[in-house]
Amino acid sequence: MDHPFDLTAAMALLERTPHLLSAWLRGLPEPWPAAAEGPGTWCPYDVVGHLIHGERTDWIPRVRHILAGESGPFEAFNREAQFSESRDASIGELLATFSRLRRENLERLRGFSLTSDDLGRRGLHPELGEVTLGQLLATWVVHDLDHVGQVARTMAKVYGATVGPWSAYLSILRDRVRS
Amino acid sequence: MDHPFDLTAAMALLERTPHLLSAWLRGLPEPWPAAAEGPGTWCPYDVVGHLIHGERTDWIPRVRHILAGESGPFEAFNREAQFSESRDASIGELLATFSRLRRENLERLRGFSLTSDDLGRRGLHPELGEVTLGQLLATWVVHDLDHVGQVARTMAKVYGATVGPWSAYLSILRDRVRS
Repeated sequence: MDHPFDLTAAMALLERTPHLLSAWLRGLPEPWPAAAEGPGTWCPYDVVGHLIHGERTDWIPRVRHILAGESGPFEAFNREAQFSESRDASIGELLATFSRLRRENLERLRGFSLTSDDLGRRGLHPELGEVTLGQLLATWVVHDLDHVGQVARTMAKVYGATVGPWSAYLSILRDRVRS
Repeated sequence: MDHPFDLTAAMALLERTPHLLSAWLRGLPEPWPAAAEGPGTWCPYDVVGHLIHGERTDWIPRVRHILAGESGPFEAFNREAQFSESRDASIGELLATFSRLRRENLERLRGFSLTSDDLGRRGLHPELGEVTLGQLLATWVVHDLDHVGQVARTMAKVYGATVGPWSAYLSILRDRVRS
């Protein structure tokens, strides 16, 4: 059910992500914040750290890169920077940082006063090749949703066996199962 | 990464679900609340209606059924009642109803003062056979998370094509794809 990119609708969802994650994860006791799906997978705490790194180094820097008409590729995004950057913060502190950075970034985005012509402007992704500004902003939205879905799936699997025979009805328990 | 059922941890997550859904969906413009993954799939609006029906007819009535020591099966849960019950309400009204019902149900659950022995008490599911009270309560939690994941996945697919080449990195776009 594809829709064209709409800046107002996209920003409405982007601005809600920190609020929903805070409503969900702030003050949540163990086992939830540190639960992972298995070796090498991320717990909710890791996901929030990853989202913070994206606010700092990925989305707005790439918007600026495109708007500046730079011909070189974007700087590569380190998808695992949270493991070195945010080990000492509580999840409440990470959520507060994410909320502040997202709010600031949406103010910057508003400040660009993007036109529909701007959304068609092109940049060079280091692996994917030519991409548009509209695709970048749509990706920001879907990237949020991907990680919200990951947090739901990861916490669900904490009770993967605990639900007993009901697991037959709970299809999230079979998403991304490693063989 | 399975964990045993823990009533305090489970209730912490159950009480947050209405807050996170409200932070996410209240006032959210189209195309998000009415977006679905395809024919016969549910949009976020439908999911909230389904969660309301569960609060009214599924979880607490089944807890009571088990605690009363009834030997007959639970009443079957109508998974699609939202399509006849809540067609006229706004999503904001549905979210307020869900929040109220969930708060009342968690008060009832607290009022039962369940012991670990109680969690092992058994009931009869009309399709799944013998289940325990602990399994029922773990299922309540995972059922919430399953639908939160569904909302994330459904809204992500709105921009399934709009992200362009980035879809290669956004694995949520390939979850539950119908062939």
